[in-house]
Amino acid sequence: MNKKIGEQTVKLGEPVTVAVTASIVGKKEGEGPLGKFFDKIINEATYGEDSWEKAESKFARETISLALAKANMSPKDIDYIFMGDLLNQCCGSTFGIKDFGIPFFGVFGACSTFGESMSLGAMLIDGGFATTVMCGAGSHFCTAEKQFRLPLEQGTQRPPTSTWTVTGEGVAILTKASKTTNKNPYGSKITHLTTGKIVDLGVKDAGNMGAAMAPAAAQVIAAHFRDTNRSTNYYDVIATGDLGYVGRALLRKLLADEGFIIGDNLTDCGIEIYNKDQQDTHCGGSGCGCSAVTYCGYFDTLLNHGTIKKMLLVPTGALMSSTSSQQGQSIPSIAHAIAIEKE
Amino acid sequence: MNKKIGEQTVKLGEPVTVAVTASIVGKKEGEGPLGKFFDKIINEATYGEDSWEKAESKFARETISLALAKANMSPKDIDYIFMGDLLNQCCGSTFGIKDFGIPFFGVFGACSTFGESMSLGAMLIDGGFATTVMCGAGSHFCTAEKQFRLPLEQGTQRPPTSTWTVTGEGVAILTKASKTTNKNPYGSKITHLTTGKIVDLGVKDAGNMGAAMAPAAAQVIAAHFRDTNRSTNYYDVIATGDLGYVGRALLRKLLADEGFIIGDNLTDCGIEIYNKDQQDTHCGGSGCGCSAVTYCGYFDTLLNHGTIKKMLLVPTGALMSSTSSQQGQSIPSIAHAIAIEKE
Repeated sequence: MNKKIGEQTVKLGEPVTVAVTASIVGKKEGEGPLGKFFDKIINEATYGEDSWEKAESKFARETISLALAKANMSPKDIDYIFMGDLLNQCCGSTFGIKDFGIPFFGVFGACSTFGESMSLGAMLIDGGFATTVMCGAGSHFCTAEKQFRLPLEQGTQRPPTSTWTVTGEGVAILTKASKTTNKNPYGSKITHLTTGKIVDLGVKDAGNMGAAMAPAAAQVIAAHFRDTNRSTNYYDVIATGDLGYVGRALLRKLLADEGFIIGDNLTDCGIEIYNKDQQDTHCGGSGCGCSAVTYCGYFDTLLNHGTIKKMLLVPTGALMSSTSSQQGQSIPSIAHAIAIEKE
Repeated sequence: MNKKIGEQTVKLGEPVTVAVTASIVGKKEGEGPLGKFFDKIINEATYGEDSWEKAESKFARETISLALAKANMSPKDIDYIFMGDLLNQCCGSTFGIKDFGIPFFGVFGACSTFGESMSLGAMLIDGGFATTVMCGAGSHFCTAEKQFRLPLEQGTQRPPTSTWTVTGEGVAILTKASKTTNKNPYGSKITHLTTGKIVDLGVKDAGNMGAAMAPAAAQVIAAHFRDTNRSTNYYDVIATGDLGYVGRALLRKLLADEGFIIGDNLTDCGIEIYNKDQQDTHCGGSGCGCSAVTYCGYFDTLLNHGTIKKMLLVPTGALMSSTSSQQGQSIPSIAHAIAIEKE
C-alpha cells in the first residue's frame, strides 16, 4: 500500500497514538507562561552534575525515565528510541540514553529534531516494524551558548532578533493505536506527516534564526496544505517550532505570497514558552527542546483535554554550525509537519 | 503485519532492492587495495574548495549527483534522503544536499551512520511510505583530524591503535523491489535489519576506537544470530564498519564468549580499505565514509557479480565528542546490522 499523498506527505494507514508525553524543563521555562504544564522544573542549570553537558544528558535520562514511569513501561517495552540534540555529535542524547538498552536511532535536524523523531517513530509503527517507539529531543541554554555563541561569563549583549535556547527535554511514547485504545483512550493520534526539504535563501545572520528558518517552514506548510487539500483553518493550532516573533511574521508573509492566508491559529512554540516582556528572551525560545517540551507539556495537554482537536506541529531547524558560520556560509533550514488529532 | 522477529531484528515484508550505489573517495583510498572499485578518486584534499569542510560537502553533493546519473533519475524521483557525517551539526551532509530539494532526514550514529541510513531507508520503503530512498554517509580525514584530534600542521605522531578517517562519500539508492526488478535485475536485496543498542564498557581512549566499538558490534551481531536463528557461517561475508585490527580481534573474542564462533567470513571495512603495511594507516580506516564507500564501492560489486551471495554489513560508531572526552567521559558505541542477499 502506497501511503504517499502528494509530493512530501504520507497519510498513515492507521493513525498512531501519542500514548504518553513527559517534559522536564529549566528554571526560566518553569517561570514562563507554560510552567504549570511541565512535569518537572529543575532550578539548577547543572542539575547536580559537574558540567552543563552532563546536565543536558541528565535532562534526557530523567525525562525518559519519567515517560516510562507514566506509561507504566520498562525499557524492554520500547522497540526503538529516536532522539537528538544540538551538542556536537549529539552527545546530550547519547549519554542520556546509553544505559537504557533500547535500540537507538540518532537523529539530527537542529531545532526540527523533535519533528524528525516523531515522524520516523510514527512511520516505523505504521510500517509494522514496532509497536511502541519513544521520540525525544532536548537542548540546554548554557551548552548552546557556550558551543554556538560566546562564553556565558562574558555577559554579551544579545541582539533583539536573537532567541533564547530552551533548557529542557520532551519525550513522547508512540504506540500502535489498536494496541492501546483501551489502555489510554485519551491519547491523540498522528495522522499525516509532511517531511521537509532544506531551504536556503542565503540568510547568514546567526543572531536571526527566525529569518533563516521561516522559508523552510513556509515550504513545508504550503506542501502540507497542497498535498492534503486541506484549508488553512482546518487546524485549531498550527505551531511552528522556534521561529519567534520575527520569523512568524515572515512566515505569514511567505505563505500569503503562495496563496495560503493563515489566521489566528498560527502560533510558535518559541513564542508560547516565554513571556517576552518579563523574561528578556527577545524573539522567543529556540533549541531542540523548544518544540519538544512545548508540545509534550502544553499542546498534548490541550489535545487530551479537548481544548483543541486538531493541530499541525511544525518543528523548525537551522542547519548550521559554528564552523560553517565562521567560513561565511549561509544558514540552510528545514522543518517537518506532523498532523495530530484528538478523536 | 508485525515484522519484528526477536528483540532487535525486523524481517522486511518484501526485500528492498539496492538499485544503484556510488562512491567518491580521496587519494589515499584510491591508492589502497579497493581503489579500482570506487567510481571516482579525488587527489586534492580540498576538492577545489577553499576549506576542507566545504570539500566534505562537495564529496556529498557530487556523489549524490553521480548516483542519480547512474540510476538515470532526477532528484524528484527520490522520496527521501537519509544522510549524516561526523562534522559538528552534520554540516558535511546538509551543505552537500541542500540544493537537491529532496525531503531530508538527518541521521547521526558516528561511523555507524551508513547503517542507520540504510536501515531507515529500507523500512520507509517496506512500510509503504516511499518507492525510492537515497541513503548516504561520508567523512573527510582533514576535517575529522581538525575537529576531533590535533591540527594536521602539527604532524603529531599517531598511536598504533589509532585508525585513519576515510575521505569519501558513499550513496545507495534503495527501491521497492517490485518496482525495479525489470530495470535492474542485478541489484541485491536487503532482507533483515538488526538495530543496535548503545553499549559502553568504559573505554576512554579516543586513540583506540576499535576497543570502544567492539562490544557494540558483538552485541548487535549476537542479537542478529539469535533473532534470525541463523548460523554464523550463513553469510559469505560479515563486515563490520571500522573496528580495525585491534577491534576485530576483540570482537571475535567477545562473540566467542557468547557462543558465536566466527570463521574467515569476518572482516572489517576499515581493514579492507587500506594496505596496512604500505599506507601507514595503523589499525585501519574509520569515519562515516569507511563502511559507506567500502560497501558502495567494493561489496556491492562483489554481490552484483555473484562473487559473494550473502553479507551482513555492520557499520560501527563511537558516540563521543571532543567535549565528552575532555570531560573524562567514556566512549559509548553502537552498531547496526543489515542483511543483504543476491538472489
